[in-house]
Amino acid sequence: MDVHAPYRYEQLADLVVDMIDKGTLSAGMRVPSVRAISEQHRISIATALQAYRMLEDQGILVARPQSGFYVSNARHAAFALPSTSRPRAKASTVSISGVVATLLEHASNMSLVPLGCAVPDVGLLQSKRLDFTLARLARQHGSRHNVYSPPRGEPGLRREIAKRSMRMGHALSPEDVLITSGCTEALTLALSAVAKPGDTIAVESPTYFGLLHTLEVLGLKALELPTDPARGVDIAALARLLGKEPVAACVLSSSFNNPLGSAMAEADKRSLLGLLSEHSIPLIEDDVYGDIHFGRDRPKPFIALAQGAGKVIYCSSFSKSLAPGYRVGWIVPGAYSQQVLARKLAFSLCSPVLPQVAVAEFLASNAYDIHLRRVRRVLEENLTRMVRAIEASFPPETKVSRPAGGFMLWLELPKQFDSRALFEEALEHGICFAPGDVFSASRRFRNCLRLSAGHAWTERIDAGVRRLGKLARAQLGR
Amino acid sequence: MDVHAPYRYEQLADLVVDMIDKGTLSAGMRVPSVRAISEQHRISIATALQAYRMLEDQGILVARPQSGFYVSNARHAAFALPSTSRPRAKASTVSISGVVATLLEHASNMSLVPLGCAVPDVGLLQSKRLDFTLARLARQHGSRHNVYSPPRGEPGLRREIAKRSMRMGHALSPEDVLITSGCTEALTLALSAVAKPGDTIAVESPTYFGLLHTLEVLGLKALELPTDPARGVDIAALARLLGKEPVAACVLSSSFNNPLGSAMAEADKRSLLGLLSEHSIPLIEDDVYGDIHFGRDRPKPFIALAQGAGKVIYCSSFSKSLAPGYRVGWIVPGAYSQQVLARKLAFSLCSPVLPQVAVAEFLASNAYDIHLRRVRRVLEENLTRMVRAIEASFPPETKVSRPAGGFMLWLELPKQFDSRALFEEALEHGICFAPGDVFSASRRFRNCLRLSAGHAWTERIDAGVRRLGKLARAQLGR
Repeated sequence: MDVHAPYRYEQLADLVVDMIDKGTLSAGMRVPSVRAISEQHRISIATALQAYRMLEDQGILVARPQSGFYVSNARHAAFALPSTSRPRAKASTVSISGVVATLLEHASNMSLVPLGCAVPDVGLLQSKRLDFTLARLARQHGSRHNVYSPPRGEPGLRREIAKRSMRMGHALSPEDVLITSGCTEALTLALSAVAKPGDTIAVESPTYFGLLHTLEVLGLKALELPTDPARGVDIAALARLLGKEPVAACVLSSSFNNPLGSAMAEADKRSLLGLLSEHSIPLIEDDVYGDIHFGRDRPKPFIALAQGAGKVIYCSSFSKSLAPGYRVGWIVPGAYSQQVLARKLAFSLCSPVLPQVAVAEFLASNAYDIHLRRVRRVLEENLTRMVRAIEASFPPETKVSRPAGGFMLWLELPKQFDSRALFEEALEHGICFAPGDVFSASRRFRNCLRLSAGHAWTERIDAGVRRLGKLARAQLGR
Repeated sequence: MDVHAPYRYEQLADLVVDMIDKGTLSAGMRVPSVRAISEQHRISIATALQAYRMLEDQGILVARPQSGFYVSNARHAAFALPSTSRPRAKASTVSISGVVATLLEHASNMSLVPLGCAVPDVGLLQSKRLDFTLARLARQHGSRHNVYSPPRGEPGLRREIAKRSMRMGHALSPEDVLITSGCTEALTLALSAVAKPGDTIAVESPTYFGLLHTLEVLGLKALELPTDPARGVDIAALARLLGKEPVAACVLSSSFNNPLGSAMAEADKRSLLGLLSEHSIPLIEDDVYGDIHFGRDRPKPFIALAQGAGKVIYCSSFSKSLAPGYRVGWIVPGAYSQQVLARKLAFSLCSPVLPQVAVAEFLASNAYDIHLRRVRRVLEENLTRMVRAIEASFPPETKVSRPAGGFMLWLELPKQFDSRALFEEALEHGICFAPGDVFSASRRFRNCLRLSAGHAWTERIDAGVRRLGKLARAQLGR
């Protein structure tokens, strides 16, 4: 096992974050050069660079060619980071589907200011090229594609997804990939392949409420893990828990988890893989936000770091970055290939053909990389604007996450704050957001909330965030 | 309860079937007029007409306006009907996914003569109008539809499906309908909503192997019910079994079950509903073949006969009659609305939007009824041709089903016949079909096979059936 005291580069990175938090370094400022810092701290240039690269991966710094490292615009020092969660060290049954259904209903209500739903909107995604590809395929080859797809999915799409896996540092063959109805089906296939009703699944805390809902439907229990808003799951805490609680599987975000946007360092990911492998616990990873990184490189998912050792099931989709309406996701089931295929046949037999071949053709054209660059830039700008609006309106005690990717912010308010009451009040003002307690099986985080910046930034959205901040202030002042 | 001795009209219908079986009445012949038969048998004209109408519903007779009733061309007297199945009266665990996966792989192999897969081919479905609708929607409104669909599905599609429910004699509102990924997801949602692992589900015998596969994946046991190739499930036998075995749900085809093509009389459906209601057992009905009826009227599904009494979950799709590649199905969950919605969210969140809106627009245009008339005619002709090819080539002891709808034939050969051996031999000759044992949890029916007539009839297919017949003769002669 590999749970360690902080390395030198981690200590340096902590120091830089601390300086940003305290306002010594502010957004847009150049940080000391690698050479200067290595001399100051008497560390090697390689170590200094490693620290900066990690902060870049986390979106805290931005590298500018021939110029050096700068504090990212998305980073702000005005508000502190939310605290690391401390859930109780015991698995709990999940009973959340009622509140999830209510939230989804409000989140899809177009008349509300859309801060509630975790999907970029159509105005931001600009999917015209993909839609035209679909149109041409339907017109020219519609009948040919009016058949059942092979159960694993269209070979052309599986090939393109396998080709793209090089970008995340892991070579896949088309045979490794099975197409799903979004990441939702992928996660459900994975969970039902590795666990049976009554089993316990370890999850981040807070975590995506859709995952909690799936645990409930499958009759699984949730063991919530202490999770840091920047660095993700606390590995030492996980190590202690695994000694006590039987865990059937662990579900983690590869990068930029929903709602925290946290990003584990590669070294931490490796430690975690070692720990799980030691206990023979399969890891199900959800990499649906991995393509929306603000740092230079795409963070490596667990599957790339495991390199065949340990049991990793990889799940992702194009819903957050390209085409939520197409419902194209995929799973790399590894050792669970037969179990996952059997479940895919029973759950949906196969996925619709035309959306699959359209996405395959879009990927083959390299248009996706150009598309991603634009989407990342827009989403990072949205987050910067949202942080500004929060700082201008929310109570000064508010803590805000600093995601290095994705498009969600997690806000923590003082303990007595009631985000449920704010939710009801906000709906009356025509604003939707996600109250904190839907992100926890044990209904923690009532003093927290998630805001989504997935919509093209408008006056209406800006005003919505500010109104929310005022309502929060008023509640705390009462 | 309502398990009864045969009614007068049923006795008369039996007599007519017997005359067809014995060759007294042959395909295309006019049967005695209603008036003549009522005088001969001293029954009322209404009773005689009821018998003929039932036979028409079953596709055995065809009504010609101003002329009378004729023996359907799809009916043949040369070969007898397969026997009513007599499975053991005990639930069994299911272990079939291996053979199902192998069969599906062969069935999707385009180089084989396609007698194996239960889906009409693209040449026969002629989906161009639907594909063009999809193309136009993608081109003109692609971005607008690049969003998550509401979890229950696109409102426009749910409205059109509700409107069409009038044709099956049952008024639905759009709120009653939830869109699924084909009938497969509908059945899985229904089963997981009403049953938990270890529970027993009563099914037809033989039944669709996909259903057996789903039971296996969900950890459910199968209780196979004696089933008649023409009249469907034996209600008296079901009544006896329900007294002995605890049953969590019953899954039945509404009409033209796969593989028998059997069709229960309305009176029998009512008796069965009464029986299940008495035992508080929910009925999950699979009506995926209901639109492909050869008789004049669409047979009423159970949900239309139950009229709110009893717990019926209705499942269907457009895969057998319009668009297998679109994966658009639906479920009417009735009393299980909340449970089914919760599972839909966990299984696939929602279905892709563009295929849904394209099917909705196609349905709204009334093009579907014109399309269905053509598809029914072609499939009935295919079956007639297939029966001819079977009679000309298979051993004379072969028994063949006479479906009143759908596009499958069920062949029963003498007990010593081994359809698995024929399957292996046929593959070597480039022919695929479905061996009988995949249609039973207890792996009965090894002397049976299913042939699909879902492909446009060609010389190649005709020759394939005849070759199969020769191979079967050779095996029995050895």
